[in-house]
Amino acid sequence: MKMFKKVTIVGIGLIGSSVARVIKQENLAEELVATDTNKEYLQTAFDLGIVDNVEPDLINAVKNADLVIYATPVGTYGTITQTIVPHLQKGAIITDVGSVKECVVRDVEKHITKESGIVFVGGHPVAGIEKSGPQAGFAEMFADRWFIVTPSQKSTPEAVEKVSELWKKAKMKVDVMDAKHHDKVMAAVSHLPHLIAFSIVGTVADLEGYEQKEIIKYSASGFRDFTRIAGSDPIMWRDIFMNNKETILDLIQRFTEDLIALQRNIRWGEADKLFDLFSRTQKIRKEVIEAKQHLMEEEKVILSKLEAVK
Amino acid sequence: MKMFKKVTIVGIGLIGSSVARVIKQENLAEELVATDTNKEYLQTAFDLGIVDNVEPDLINAVKNADLVIYATPVGTYGTITQTIVPHLQKGAIITDVGSVKECVVRDVEKHITKESGIVFVGGHPVAGIEKSGPQAGFAEMFADRWFIVTPSQKSTPEAVEKVSELWKKAKMKVDVMDAKHHDKVMAAVSHLPHLIAFSIVGTVADLEGYEQKEIIKYSASGFRDFTRIAGSDPIMWRDIFMNNKETILDLIQRFTEDLIALQRNIRWGEADKLFDLFSRTQKIRKEVIEAKQHLMEEEKVILSKLEAVK
Repeated sequence: MKMFKKVTIVGIGLIGSSVARVIKQENLAEELVATDTNKEYLQTAFDLGIVDNVEPDLINAVKNADLVIYATPVGTYGTITQTIVPHLQKGAIITDVGSVKECVVRDVEKHITKESGIVFVGGHPVAGIEKSGPQAGFAEMFADRWFIVTPSQKSTPEAVEKVSELWKKAKMKVDVMDAKHHDKVMAAVSHLPHLIAFSIVGTVADLEGYEQKEIIKYSASGFRDFTRIAGSDPIMWRDIFMNNKETILDLIQRFTEDLIALQRNIRWGEADKLFDLFSRTQKIRKEVIEAKQHLMEEEKVILSKLEAVK
Repeated sequence: MKMFKKVTIVGIGLIGSSVARVIKQENLAEELVATDTNKEYLQTAFDLGIVDNVEPDLINAVKNADLVIYATPVGTYGTITQTIVPHLQKGAIITDVGSVKECVVRDVEKHITKESGIVFVGGHPVAGIEKSGPQAGFAEMFADRWFIVTPSQKSTPEAVEKVSELWKKAKMKVDVMDAKHHDKVMAAVSHLPHLIAFSIVGTVADLEGYEQKEIIKYSASGFRDFTRIAGSDPIMWRDIFMNNKETILDLIQRFTEDLIALQRNIRWGEADKLFDLFSRTQKIRKEVIEAKQHLMEEEKVILSKLEAVK
């Protein structure tokens, strides 16, 4: 017997299509349906054969599903839940892939009555690339990365277990965290870095007295790496910043203080202080490598392909 | 006849060893010598067979060389030049690979008398990775990237031509720029991004109330990419910031202003402004991809290997 009878993926973009590929490859559902407001995405997903069916109507799409996965920007979850809950079968599990969790649990659970028998399990597969759309997804994206499950007081242990099992099939390692702590950690390791990347790409692109062409031409010297991160989906990121506001604002403040100190070190020629900081950051890089988190998702895939043909 | 009789590479780290590999592979010199204050680097370079000889003594190393390439941190160029000029043969060319050029031209040329017949040609191969040492180098690093040559009033056209030819053999595209303009462009596309990366990695690593282990563990969600850049050589970068001070200080100021505006957008819930910025930065990413500057040096190499085995 397969793990699920019918899985519906709401939002068949980069992450939605990648988890669809996992479900197909691992044969985890008797039926796999995708729904999306973007008709082109649905057509592409169908043409790629990564789902069994596509259904533009949200309510039709979730009927008889025992698992619904939200892979849309987090700002949409409330409305989606309000729309589908009356039409979901008793015992259905809703889960998501969003990068913030406290607001998600609040927005989703307020539309789920106890009587409905529906359980929400918040989740966050910590993996991704900056590209968008179903053609950009790949099943190997999740391998060796962490899946963070954030059970609420209303989540049942069975539902948490089932969702975790799904991501283990995607070769993820599973961690359990409360939603608040998740958002705090992600603000530091993901949200702040992304915000800084968006900001610096904007700054450099707007510099007057510079030729835009030169900025692009020589981007391989550092700017390029920031454009990669700042090439991420604008709606997804707008929603993340709007929904983890306080922690992010606090961290921006901290970052600005440190940057101003560094600016002062440069102005006064305090070369030793720069050297000390740069030596510390080099050590941190080594720790990332030791924790095997240094390869980018695509690099990981290319390397494993190269290994396979050897 | 080979392009050079004897080439001496001063500093056989990442870039020095990579250009050594190019000179060997392309058979550009009758003799290729490396010198370095790091004896381990010299031994490694010799063991790898990427140079003909290693010579710890700087003066002995440059004797009879018709080309000397500086691949040490830019802060060392003045002393090196002062040391070697009396022992260099007439007509010898000195070039470098440093990431700043105005101070380099000044520091080097002040030690070269007209009578010596020695010519300095400043150069900057815009390519690199964050790793250090001769074992990390590879000849393909430079392929399809830009080499910027910054002739001074004292550089002869013949010497500029010869240095440019060398980098064309490394499959680089060549651009000519004056040193001042080079430093202005690099401050924006390289020095500011690196500084921001060093700064944010320091900030995130120091956050109290966070477990350092969690920061590393979930670094794949964005922080990782900054650690890569912030893993670059501390001495090299200290010297760059000390030698392109004014322009960098000006750009930090610009960046901080933009970041504070963005912070304000978040605080006041101005979601549209975030979306506008993120859409603009996404377009800039597309331009980088169109200009074929998006792949990292190692990705480029892995992809070409994968292509080759197909």
